[in-house]
Amino acid sequence: MNFILPDNVRAFTLPQVLLANAPEPEDAPLVLGAVLLSLVVVYLAAKLGGEICARVNLPSVLGELVGGVLVGVSALHLIMFPEAGAEESTSLIIRFLESTGGLSSSGAFSVFQAESEVVNILSELGVIILLFEIGLESDLRELIRVGPQAVVVAIIGVVTPFTLGTVGLIALFGVPTIPAVFAGAALTATSIGITAKVLSELGKLSSREGQIIIGAAVLDDVLGIIVLAVVASLAKTGEIEISNVVYLVLGAAVFLVGSIFLGRLLSPYFVSLVDRLKTRGQLLISSLIFTFVLAYIGAAIHLEAILGAFAAGLILAETTKREELEEQVIPIADMLVPVFFVTVGARTDISVLNPMVPENREGLIIAAFLVVVAFIGKVVTGLGVFGQDGINRWAIGVGMVPRGEVGLVFVGVGSATGILSESLEAAIIVMVILTTFLAPALLRVVFKEKDPGSTESTKPMATALEGASSSPSDVSD
Amino acid sequence: MNFILPDNVRAFTLPQVLLANAPEPEDAPLVLGAVLLSLVVVYLAAKLGGEICARVNLPSVLGELVGGVLVGVSALHLIMFPEAGAEESTSLIIRFLESTGGLSSSGAFSVFQAESEVVNILSELGVIILLFEIGLESDLRELIRVGPQAVVVAIIGVVTPFTLGTVGLIALFGVPTIPAVFAGAALTATSIGITAKVLSELGKLSSREGQIIIGAAVLDDVLGIIVLAVVASLAKTGEIEISNVVYLVLGAAVFLVGSIFLGRLLSPYFVSLVDRLKTRGQLLISSLIFTFVLAYIGAAIHLEAILGAFAAGLILAETTKREELEEQVIPIADMLVPVFFVTVGARTDISVLNPMVPENREGLIIAAFLVVVAFIGKVVTGLGVFGQDGINRWAIGVGMVPRGEVGLVFVGVGSATGILSESLEAAIIVMVILTTFLAPALLRVVFKEKDPGSTESTKPMATALEGASSSPSDVSD
Repeated sequence: MNFILPDNVRAFTLPQVLLANAPEPEDAPLVLGAVLLSLVVVYLAAKLGGEICARVNLPSVLGELVGGVLVGVSALHLIMFPEAGAEESTSLIIRFLESTGGLSSSGAFSVFQAESEVVNILSELGVIILLFEIGLESDLRELIRVGPQAVVVAIIGVVTPFTLGTVGLIALFGVPTIPAVFAGAALTATSIGITAKVLSELGKLSSREGQIIIGAAVLDDVLGIIVLAVVASLAKTGEIEISNVVYLVLGAAVFLVGSIFLGRLLSPYFVSLVDRLKTRGQLLISSLIFTFVLAYIGAAIHLEAILGAFAAGLILAETTKREELEEQVIPIADMLVPVFFVTVGARTDISVLNPMVPENREGLIIAAFLVVVAFIGKVVTGLGVFGQDGINRWAIGVGMVPRGEVGLVFVGVGSATGILSESLEAAIIVMVILTTFLAPALLRVVFKEKDPGSTESTKPMATALEGASSSPSDVSD
Repeated sequence: MNFILPDNVRAFTLPQVLLANAPEPEDAPLVLGAVLLSLVVVYLAAKLGGEICARVNLPSVLGELVGGVLVGVSALHLIMFPEAGAEESTSLIIRFLESTGGLSSSGAFSVFQAESEVVNILSELGVIILLFEIGLESDLRELIRVGPQAVVVAIIGVVTPFTLGTVGLIALFGVPTIPAVFAGAALTATSIGITAKVLSELGKLSSREGQIIIGAAVLDDVLGIIVLAVVASLAKTGEIEISNVVYLVLGAAVFLVGSIFLGRLLSPYFVSLVDRLKTRGQLLISSLIFTFVLAYIGAAIHLEAILGAFAAGLILAETTKREELEEQVIPIADMLVPVFFVTVGARTDISVLNPMVPENREGLIIAAFLVVVAFIGKVVTGLGVFGQDGINRWAIGVGMVPRGEVGLVFVGVGSATGILSESLEAAIIVMVILTTFLAPALLRVVFKEKDPGSTESTKPMATALEGASSSPSDVSD
């Protein structure tokens, strides 16, 4: 069977086919140019937003997200992604290159695509490095000690918003069961990246509350993947594949427990190997190899790369190299992590928040309900913490609130399956935006209220120092 | 006019067209997986090669290049690039993903392409960071002081190998004029990246010889771009476009002098801005913004991104933030620079070196001639240094020898224009390989021979220390 392509398609595709879809050789330096410009825009947005937030006593990560919104699909159209449906002509960076850099309009498409792919991978490497750094700053023994509390917090934080959300949507809004289940599932997510970054900025990562939140958020990430797999197969086939669920649960358990167990066993050999290396960067590169291998395994068994990176950080934190490594990871995190937060913001389309557009109104009403459920469903998790006198229950509850990039993944999957109505999809996006953007500010408030008397950390000195200097200036280190 | 595509092309292209050539959504995490695996391979190759070289007293950058050859197109086929003609089925990483990661064979192509593009850009960012670091470690005043010497060295190093090579090829081997001119042009290149890295490893970057070499190599990079432009237009049209040459010369002069002049003028404002920022990474991110902007401008005016990065480093080296910044750049360089050297090695096809293949023999004979000319033509540059008593002329001459990635660019352009015969192209590749791989080892020898009495640096303390500890252990910092 032959197939006749219309002229415009042919003109567009033939050179692509001949050149194996890669940017044409003369456009190749332009991909680098586009990436350099994108990084400049990302850094400017991150610093502008971050500095403003730091000055009004908000976590700077919130500023990076808002900065991302400013340069992304919602406003300036500088950082755009083709998978979000953007065309190359909508990217201002590509249009800038066309007018100043000699980019041909036929090459614009492949350059745009290559640039977005690179920025996307840099942001993924950013969140991998972030979780590695969080792992390094965490204390495995403390994490195991608060493990039971973290498990309870994680489970309450999944069951409560899921039940409230699903039942509420069906009962109050007459949403059909499967879309309601999907929206309920989206409510269960927790953005470990955003929460951990805010905790780190507040100097609360190694506090008891911090470790419970981190532990619960990691478990929540695993639970979220399982919920998503279940709901997606429910949406596709109307059935739940039990074998798939069992596989994911077992995989996650074996991976996390196994890698930490094996890692602790092997880490002395790692340290003595690093000590015998003579070339520059011996510790950093060896650690990156270890981290990237675990991240790859995490991704390959259908969990997430960031879980592997977190495990790698936890393991290396137990070695004598922890401090040296922490110091070396800081500049790399400073370089890559903002790419992640800014692109999360850039991908978020906030036009659904505009009540002046009549089509948005139905979504906004449902959204109001989802936001309330999203906050209540996670804040109650603080009540589930047992056997820890004087713990800051508000902090734990609020720490679980931000949905962030995990919520956006749910929206993406829901959008792809086509089961969500437009208003429901918009409502979920609004819920993700508000939980992501309000929780960091709230977290600062609830930590301040009870400070510095109420918590007893296993590292009293460090916590006391952190608590005492909880002023804007402590964000700067 | 309609056009009927043959079945196999259509089957291959249609889904690509529909999906806008991007990896299919379910393959998107696989791009991250492929990049993670590629980085693991790159780091293993870099460390393995680097450590072996450090132990036998060779510069570790040579080990990174050889490690790259080992994992690249010449041997293990792990790090492959589509623009070098590789298909996705030849990349072992892609085949590994197909067998373990659930990559579909229809998605393999786009994943391979996206992965190669990302690794390619990471290596470009690596050489940008390397030149930024070299700039930071250089001393602008010293560079200006040895400027006249650097100019003479650069000009001798372009004229001598070009004349000897072109005339010799025509007279001895009966090569036609235009290909002979092209091969002569390829002999003029100097790899600033490789030379600078070796100097840095030897602790000789801030010595007088080091600064003359760096200055001359930067000028050589500019001259090389001009020579390439001239020769490429000669090959295409048989004529030389004078306006183009004038544009490049003026552009380079205005850019380098202008950016350094303006940069020095504005750097106090930069420092006071950085001092007022409060969020983490304020110095690093501000410096990266500055560096990437200059790198972009360098690329946009048809010079090179690395020239802009070098200028940025020189300018920031003059500020009070130099030391703090140097410290923060080290981990980033450790992470990204090996990607550059390993991919240079991975792209190099050393099969042309095999004398057992009859087709290689003609090329090898021409290659022997080119290699001799390549060494003589650059080593004589040391004789051109005037008014510097007791300078190590051998070191300067040998420092200009490696052709490295610049030589590979000449080969690529020559290959694209189709004016080079197969044997001549192979001969140029052999010349690039041998100068790149032998010069680092030789450089160590010639610096040792005259050490430590013969040079008088402007930083006598530092040089004395560097000279005294020129043992394998000093590569480790």
